[in-house]
Amino acid sequence: MMQTTAQLAEFITGFDSAAIPQDVREVAQRSLVNWAGCALGGAKHPAVDIALEAMRPFIGAPHATVIGRSDRVDALNAALLNGISSHVLDFDDTHLATLVHPSGPVLAALLALAEHHPIDGKTFVEAIVMGIEVECRIALGVCPAHYDIGWHVTGTVGGFGAAAAVGRALRLDARQMAWALGIAATQAAGLREVFGTMCKGLHPGRAAQSGLSAALMARAGFTSSLRAIEAPRGFAHVLSTEQDFDRMTDGLGTVWHTRENSFKPYACGLVVHPVIDGCVTLRNSHAFESGDVDVIALRVHPLVKELTGKPAPTTGLEGKFSVNHSAAIALHEGRSTSSHYTDAAVRIPAVAALRDRVTVEIVPGVRVDEAYVSVRLKDGRLLEHHVEHALGSIRRPMNDAQIDEKFMDLAQVVMTRDQAAGALQTCRRIESLANAGEIGQALAL
Amino acid sequence: MMQTTAQLAEFITGFDSAAIPQDVREVAQRSLVNWAGCALGGAKHPAVDIALEAMRPFIGAPHATVIGRSDRVDALNAALLNGISSHVLDFDDTHLATLVHPSGPVLAALLALAEHHPIDGKTFVEAIVMGIEVECRIALGVCPAHYDIGWHVTGTVGGFGAAAAVGRALRLDARQMAWALGIAATQAAGLREVFGTMCKGLHPGRAAQSGLSAALMARAGFTSSLRAIEAPRGFAHVLSTEQDFDRMTDGLGTVWHTRENSFKPYACGLVVHPVIDGCVTLRNSHAFESGDVDVIALRVHPLVKELTGKPAPTTGLEGKFSVNHSAAIALHEGRSTSSHYTDAAVRIPAVAALRDRVTVEIVPGVRVDEAYVSVRLKDGRLLEHHVEHALGSIRRPMNDAQIDEKFMDLAQVVMTRDQAAGALQTCRRIESLANAGEIGQALAL
Repeated sequence: MMQTTAQLAEFITGFDSAAIPQDVREVAQRSLVNWAGCALGGAKHPAVDIALEAMRPFIGAPHATVIGRSDRVDALNAALLNGISSHVLDFDDTHLATLVHPSGPVLAALLALAEHHPIDGKTFVEAIVMGIEVECRIALGVCPAHYDIGWHVTGTVGGFGAAAAVGRALRLDARQMAWALGIAATQAAGLREVFGTMCKGLHPGRAAQSGLSAALMARAGFTSSLRAIEAPRGFAHVLSTEQDFDRMTDGLGTVWHTRENSFKPYACGLVVHPVIDGCVTLRNSHAFESGDVDVIALRVHPLVKELTGKPAPTTGLEGKFSVNHSAAIALHEGRSTSSHYTDAAVRIPAVAALRDRVTVEIVPGVRVDEAYVSVRLKDGRLLEHHVEHALGSIRRPMNDAQIDEKFMDLAQVVMTRDQAAGALQTCRRIESLANAGEIGQALAL
Repeated sequence: MMQTTAQLAEFITGFDSAAIPQDVREVAQRSLVNWAGCALGGAKHPAVDIALEAMRPFIGAPHATVIGRSDRVDALNAALLNGISSHVLDFDDTHLATLVHPSGPVLAALLALAEHHPIDGKTFVEAIVMGIEVECRIALGVCPAHYDIGWHVTGTVGGFGAAAAVGRALRLDARQMAWALGIAATQAAGLREVFGTMCKGLHPGRAAQSGLSAALMARAGFTSSLRAIEAPRGFAHVLSTEQDFDRMTDGLGTVWHTRENSFKPYACGLVVHPVIDGCVTLRNSHAFESGDVDVIALRVHPLVKELTGKPAPTTGLEGKFSVNHSAAIALHEGRSTSSHYTDAAVRIPAVAALRDRVTVEIVPGVRVDEAYVSVRLKDGRLLEHHVEHALGSIRRPMNDAQIDEKFMDLAQVVMTRDQAAGALQTCRRIESLANAGEIGQALAL
């Protein structure tokens, strides 16, 4: 029986492109669009400004794009910065079974590579698949124990994903790929303690950079352990109290965990999504104004109060942790976009007035992707909506049109509508691009 | 009571320079000389060649030296590469209580900074002290459990040391310093599984780079947790099963763990050092030739056989794990240098003949820094020497002249005797340099 690291390395480097199912390729494309949108939306976040300012004296040849900006930097710094910008809004993709945000490390590394070392669009998509698949599989073998200990799993397994994607794109041989996984393993890092600070976004950025350099170093002959994942002093044993190596390799090439990647429609924690969904639906299916509302009554899963129980947020960031604000602004606007979580948005008087009318009731048996939303109007009317599965959940995923709309919303934080539409079109055409590096140019300012 | 991270940050940034004892400053200077020698000796190692080749397309402004080479690179890459070269020979310093190799991360980061951002020699020395002190203290709070789990403690705590040294040199305020420690904490990595591969040297290199960038990012305003070391999901709890936070901060500014830093006289594992010491002594105190030797009988601590029991090494690296070779070549040459652990050295016929005459007996009660060495000559003479404490042990540290001799031996791997003597003089004058960056120029080819 081949060992875990060797099996994964063999799969990454040797799996036949033609055997990757079409729907899995489509998840990869959708992941690209969603990731690029998030990176554009986060491009002007202070975390990106500051990291770029700190790195500026050390930047090498400007062959890669800092997404959503006019700066050009070397590929390793691009991987770092685009990994940060794609995660700072907490709006990127999620592998729900492990809580990994797969695209940040994989795509930040891969796009940076593609701008430095030309690869075609088909190879790019296959490399995304390999990156996401391997990242989620390694996470499945150590989670939930690994996450419960305090590891931010996106930081720790992200390096494997980035190394896998880049290793596939560079056509490493299996031994080089095993070394690359080993070099990534010995750089795996990221603590949940830093959540709520700029360091959360640093995790996918550093993972992208570590994984990209791991693949480049392995290609040049830098050696590592060939069993860095499964050995007694390797990744899984050192960074987790539980290990399931079978979950890492079972059904390789037939079972695709990449299919479980999910996309968020709203720029806040997943637990509030059913509520937002219900408020948007009610506002758009009935004739009333915000001033007509007497009470917004929410019946929800316990995590909603635990994670987003802040009744009176004063900043955009706090707004993300306030079910009251999320419900109020969704009902007020009839939609939910990233612009609803700015400092200005939480101070809109009509929204502030509405949020004081929100009541939250915990109802046993309501699932985490479910909510009951009732709006009582001052004229006595009672409007009700039951969200069985929130948009973006596994049971009701966002469709391509919705992901495109999300991209357009986020892209317009930094570019015109026309530029955004052009960038979207380039991302959507990825499989037909002769040079995937064009994505970088499309996402630059 | 102030928390651990805050206390350390306060100490690093606020401790009065004048209150650093003279002997502690001297340890820092000695650490610099020893570290620089190791980096020169390792400068042409394949791990350095390969890492440099892999990084070359991404290198920024050439403001910093790759030690022992003519290449100039940006400071972040210099930190990486000089961290690698200083550890690849396994000849750098050791904090015996924790097995941390303190100087690699601290000095690789600090020298790279000094070549980019001028700092005077006094500040440089104080920054070394802060780096080594904080690194060893954090390690003391989690070791031995942390090391036993499988963490390479030099990799994990090295980032704190580098961040502390650079943070002191950059005169960060206490809050920025706490952020820098937090940024380092969330990048802490390094698995013992990769020992025996090029990745072992990568650990201090990456730690130097992470710690340097952590301090630079914190200075620019990149936020992190202010209690990343002690929080329930922080460094100590996530990366160790045991935590002793008092050991991290007890006697800050009065007890100096930096004093416990030790230097290796011989280019192999510490457990063989008493044997080498005895062989060198016997050869130089009696008149005989290698061909006169009948038996070399060693009575030693059990770890000698466990770690270095290889009777017939075929490569220089294997020679380091062979007490037989180490004893034979030390007796043959009457000294021990890094050149004794090359592929050619293990194949010298007279040495190979001698190593077959080595017998190793485990004797209960013999300490790890102790050995009994007997040489029986063919003419019947019996020569005996009892090494109570090996040179380089805490009880019998190397003196400055011996460290200088080690430097000269290692430096001549890449430079002439005159160049080496000049470089040594510059290192020894560190406290009087107006610009500590001169060290970089002295160590360049």
